Amino acid sequence: MKQVRIGMIGYGFMGRTHSNAYLQSPRFFPTEHRPVLKAVCARNKDKAEEFADRWGYESVETDWRELLKRDDIDAVDICTPNNLHKEIAIAAAAAGKMILCEKPLAMNSAEGEEMVEAVEKAGVANMVWYNYRRVPAVTLAKQIIDSGKLGRIFHYRANFLQDWTISEDVPQGGTATWRLDVQAAGSGVTGDLLAHCIDTALWLNGSITNVTAMTETFVKERVHAETGEKKPVGIDDACAFLCRFANGSLGLFESTRYARGHKALYTFEVNGQHASLRWDLHDLHRLEYFDHADESKVRGWRSIHVTDSDHPYMGNWWVPGLQIGYEHTFIHQVADFLKGLDTGEEVHPTFRDALETQRVCDAVLNSAKQGNWENV
Amino acid sequence: MKQVRIGMIGYGFMGRTHSNAYLQSPRFFPTEHRPVLKAVCARNKDKAEEFADRWGYESVETDWRELLKRDDIDAVDICTPNNLHKEIAIAAAAAGKMILCEKPLAMNSAEGEEMVEAVEKAGVANMVWYNYRRVPAVTLAKQIIDSGKLGRIFHYRANFLQDWTISEDVPQGGTATWRLDVQAAGSGVTGDLLAHCIDTALWLNGSITNVTAMTETFVKERVHAETGEKKPVGIDDACAFLCRFANGSLGLFESTRYARGHKALYTFEVNGQHASLRWDLHDLHRLEYFDHADESKVRGWRSIHVTDSDHPYMGNWWVPGLQIGYEHTFIHQVADFLKGLDTGEEVHPTFRDALETQRVCDAVLNSAKQGNWENV
Amino acid sequence: MKQVRIGMIGYGFMGRTHSNAYLQSPRFFPTEHRPVLKAVCARNKDKAEEFADRWGYESVETDWRELLKRDDIDAVDICTPNNLHKEIAIAAAAAGKMILCEKPLAMNSAEGEEMVEAVEKAGVANMVWYNYRRVPAVTLAKQIIDSGKLGRIFHYRANFLQDWTISEDVPQGGTATWRLDVQAAGSGVTGDLLAHCIDTALWLNGSITNVTAMTETFVKERVHAETGEKKPVGIDDACAFLCRFANGSLGLFESTRYARGHKALYTFEVNGQHASLRWDLHDLHRLEYFDHADESKVRGWRSIHVTDSDHPYMGNWWVPGLQIGYEHTFIHQVADFLKGLDTGEEVHPTFRDALETQRVCDAVLNSAKQGNWENV
Amino acid sequence: MKQVRIGMIGYGFMGRTHSNAYLQSPRFFPTEHRPVLKAVCARNKDKAEEFADRWGYESVETDWRELLKRDDIDAVDICTPNNLHKEIAIAAAAAGKMILCEKPLAMNSAEGEEMVEAVEKAGVANMVWYNYRRVPAVTLAKQIIDSGKLGRIFHYRANFLQDWTISEDVPQGGTATWRLDVQAAGSGVTGDLLAHCIDTALWLNGSITNVTAMTETFVKERVHAETGEKKPVGIDDACAFLCRFANGSLGLFESTRYARGHKALYTFEVNGQHASLRWDLHDLHRLEYFDHADESKVRGWRSIHVTDSDHPYMGNWWVPGLQIGYEHTFIHQVADFLKGLDTGEEVHPTFRDALETQRVCDAVLNSAKQGNWENV
Repeated sequence: MKQVRIGMIGYGFMGRTHSNAYLQSPRFFPTEHRPVLKAVCARNKDKAEEFADRWGYESVETDWRELLKRDDIDAVDICTPNNLHKEIAIAAAAAGKMILCEKPLAMNSAEGEEMVEAVEKAGVANMVWYNYRRVPAVTLAKQIIDSGKLGRIFHYRANFLQDWTISEDVPQGGTATWRLDVQAAGSGVTGDLLAHCIDTALWLNGSITNVTAMTETFVKERVHAETGEKKPVGIDDACAFLCRFANGSLGLFESTRYARGHKALYTFEVNGQHASLRWDLHDLHRLEYFDHADESKVRGWRSIHVTDSDHPYMGNWWVPGLQIGYEHTFIHQVADFLKGLDTGEEVHPTFRDALETQRVCDAVLNSAKQGNWENV
Repeated sequence: MKQVRIGMIGYGFMGRTHSNAYLQSPRFFPTEHRPVLKAVCARNKDKAEEFADRWGYESVETDWRELLKRDDIDAVDICTPNNLHKEIAIAAAAAGKMILCEKPLAMNSAEGEEMVEAVEKAGVANMVWYNYRRVPAVTLAKQIIDSGKLGRIFHYRANFLQDWTISEDVPQGGTATWRLDVQAAGSGVTGDLLAHCIDTALWLNGSITNVTAMTETFVKERVHAETGEKKPVGIDDACAFLCRFANGSLGLFESTRYARGHKALYTFEVNGQHASLRWDLHDLHRLEYFDHADESKVRGWRSIHVTDSDHPYMGNWWVPGLQIGYEHTFIHQVADFLKGLDTGEEVHPTFRDALETQRVCDAVLNSAKQGNWENV
Repeated sequence: MKQVRIGMIGYGFMGRTHSNAYLQSPRFFPTEHRPVLKAVCARNKDKAEEFADRWGYESVETDWRELLKRDDIDAVDICTPNNLHKEIAIAAAAAGKMILCEKPLAMNSAEGEEMVEAVEKAGVANMVWYNYRRVPAVTLAKQIIDSGKLGRIFHYRANFLQDWTISEDVPQGGTATWRLDVQAAGSGVTGDLLAHCIDTALWLNGSITNVTAMTETFVKERVHAETGEKKPVGIDDACAFLCRFANGSLGLFESTRYARGHKALYTFEVNGQHASLRWDLHDLHRLEYFDHADESKVRGWRSIHVTDSDHPYMGNWWVPGLQIGYEHTFIHQVADFLKGLDTGEEVHPTFRDALETQRVCDAVLNSAKQGNWENV
Repeated sequence: MKQVRIGMIGYGFMGRTHSNAYLQSPRFFPTEHRPVLKAVCARNKDKAEEFADRWGYESVETDWRELLKRDDIDAVDICTPNNLHKEIAIAAAAAGKMILCEKPLAMNSAEGEEMVEAVEKAGVANMVWYNYRRVPAVTLAKQIIDSGKLGRIFHYRANFLQDWTISEDVPQGGTATWRLDVQAAGSGVTGDLLAHCIDTALWLNGSITNVTAMTETFVKERVHAETGEKKPVGIDDACAFLCRFANGSLGLFESTRYARGHKALYTFEVNGQHASLRWDLHDLHRLEYFDHADESKVRGWRSIHVTDSDHPYMGNWWVPGLQIGYEHTFIHQVADFLKGLDTGEEVHPTFRDALETQRVCDAVLNSAKQGNWENV
């Protein structure tokens, strides 16, 4: 058994999902490398201690620079708002730490490039938490596409629909709502939600070459959560774009936080010459599959209940028919990361993979600003 | 072109569905024999004339005995309440008329036997309107089962759920609500709804050997629609039964008019060794199919959109993807009846087929009364 | 009873749906005005006669100019390929005939303007067969939106997905596949499919102000059905566009004939401040509705089975729970047209309404060609 | 913080689900009482040690009697085959241990009665792992019913369908397949699957008064997993029953391991005067709800995505829209058990609750044997 001593920076929603994953992974996916929850770092010492107590971290830090100096930390997990990713990641790389960074990688691709350069120069293991690749149904989609069952791809469409900011009373900024503050988040739904859609799309369907996009901010001013001051909203509330992939297929993407009735409806669909696939996060344990090779009279969309032991990751969980949930995507990612350390193989998405997503995001935001097609 | 001159008895809901079917059949399913709407018969002359005008019947009668005497009537369509089926059918057979009789065939199997004897002795074409056999998805189910894809059958379950009599204010008796009057209907949901489920089951899965049943009348007294008098309710509001089929499979049937939220939810499911099927009337254009022979990773219930040109009856309608509805089941039945006249082949369900359903209904009602298993 | 004597031009798929509608409308939706199938016109006399026989037209013509000269024709129904709409419609208007024209109105909006001018100058009743407005679930969506239940609209998305031209062996041109011939059709999926989506969108959500679009032709050359010659394909196989509506909402539209697994999947979704709606043509009898005003613990998307007697058009059909199908949309349109003649009220969509759709189609195709945002 | 030192007996599938629950509960549902994984007991020492290592148990035992003697064990968790429940539970009660026992409580109700007497006499906290009560959607169903929204209940139906024993090659007996061995399991689907359905039904809808049942063993002989000897199969492969509830409603229950296409399809539906509910385990995060009080035009079955923070248990997990899975039901049960220790309130289902389920199971099996209605 080899320890991977974790230093977690941040204690919010993502801090919880990652901490849970470190604890659960060894029980369900045994690896030689095992995570040890060494330290959690947050400016607010009380909150950090409460978090450490809850999750079993051995110690707390209030300054991430101090955390990076510690010899008993092997890997740094960056769960801060987006505007801190770059500085921490570059320092962590310089300190020789492995890095697990929340998505999106950076505020923009210029930052992302510096970060990629830093980790590659330092030669440290690095990974970005685009967790949805590891929903078993999504991984199965990847396997099906890679098997060639779809043939030539014609269409890829994805959206990520939420409804939690419709009320004008939702503030911007602060701990809980920093995602509405352009200073902390860099963008709105584009970096927060579309980035997930883009990461999956690049993984399943290859590079995007060019885009044309549209953004909108429906609520123009919001109170700041900490100052109480009403200020213009700088983020995109909604964003949609058309694109072309390098393989000749057409793409359609949309995200919003104003789609009443949808909480976290990430969906995608891929249409190929011979077969099609679709999936949605509200029923994440199912994959819809249509195969034109089926006998014509009994052809139809199949609803695959992705819970059988030969489905990705599922052999390590319960028995067929019993579903897992959202948190398991992080457990799978930790498991794969640790297995990568065992075998020496790189685990994706790396910083470099995530940089590609960042470039698409930049092109999308630029296109929306300028009203033209933009090359990635 | 050979005329089949129709004399319709009754002008209610079923009178409409049948009349529409006679008119539509030749346009979509051309046959040598063509129906001609010769006469409609009802005690109320004004209603009969209004109906004749709407649907294009050439004449009206107010006494069905007079109708049977007419030389210009080839076929009699019995759309009266159940308590009149026997007398009319036997007289019609004696008059040498073809007979198309609404379901259930009779008030009970004793009546049914007389009717079968009459039509078989007279040698007249006869058919009972168990229309759901001719939903394209149901006919497809029959084809799939007959192909052997399911292998040995283990389970058959069906139900027919409605909610229109929950209110105590719904009356019994009269033109619109005779189905709640045991004198006119013979039974409640058993003859009205379960009879459909049983007819399909016998067709798809063979004979039922024995049953154990339970009935309930939730609302004990209702006002009579015509007299206004409050009287005990004699019908079964709900009925469920377990049974065994001759092929060794187990059956489970249920029907009620007290299932809030369901209007006409007729569903069935068949589980075989290799494959399973399920269907419901609320989405009648779909058939669900699971085939264990599919490659395991991409196995799942298929939702077959039964609208392709190679699906039963569908090549004569529109184009793939465009659904048909309820009324088309009657059109298909007329089309098949006429094609049977063209070719001389018997068209099912005949009176004899329907008698078998009646026998199961009798066994069900007897079992419910006596609290034991009853042989069919 | 007042006769409306119909002269039908064309005998293809749409000729059948319209003829059926003329025959069925009076039986289910009685009006003072009643259609009489007077003549069908087609260049091929044999086909015209066969069609007349099937549907009960009293006579045939082989030259539409002759048809227009006849005094016994009150209304002309144009079911030809798109490239003939303009000439026939203008001549019919000049002849004082009512006009029912298949969609899209014209090859482009320049043609459409001439047509609108002609019918308005002539003062003849005119209507375009955008039949999907009259799916009961779609009409219900309109009623719900008009009631204000949705509040401010944020998003409108629609697509129309098919898969019938994936094979390179599908020809272009000829009677059955003129929709792939740019000379006859004017465009591909834009005029054929997106036009439906746009018509519904304008009806439900108001004007579209500007668009950015992308088109693709996946199969570059196809054999001509009549000449056998392989020629470049001029139509758009797929088209997607982003747009903004005058009410401030964002739109997303897509259509293709290369979406494996979908036959006629026309879907739309509308997200408002308080409620959302979605619908698809593959289950056309259902409307999905989410109402944020519902008590929070039991809030969810409702699947409305649009078959109750208080749902649009449904009181004239069967009983609750029993669905109707595709063909009924045309019956409803005829019924409304006839009722409009009874009352003198204009029935929509008129030529002028359809011209607005044509303008959006033009902007879409121009944007796709030029790669920029285009005003409508 | 008060420790509850757990002694786990058994290390199979249920041993894993419970162990996980003890570890996860304190992190998501903090309580004063906290479980400590003290010892795991199994006859096979290697397996016990491997299990202890994986889950963090401090020690192992190979004889459950030794475990019961230990002073450092507060609570015993019985995860053995059913035929050992009684002896262990009675001994554990005598030793003053709290008891958490897997379901079904016992081999039959006679055993169950002894066990209830033992725990009640000893005054020890006791609970049975009918985990499905604590699926958030099922708990929500309970809240909705208790609120009175459904009014008088007319119908309750449930089934539990699996397909894993269709092959004749599945053995009986042994560690993995003891559920097919009547000596170890007592019954087949009745105790294994229907017991779940009955427990939920009693909880949601009150007592069952009488039943009529049917069982079947489709595969008559199976090889024993350990001896290799082919022997008659003593369990019921399938069981269905009709019943009446004390509240006047009718029940319909079915379970089988021969329903091709279903892995763990536990479903139930409740129809009340004003509203109905349905749920299934294959999409456990959803509850379907129909409320007749909704405005008629927009009435429909609601699909409640039970992931909002005001839904049972969900406030302690992630954010709205993100689903949890099967294992969480056990976590909730542990959390409630511990909270019960904090507050002193009894936590259900207790042994006494589970005895009621056992009595229904006995009546079902007796009825199936004797072919009559049986009182509970």
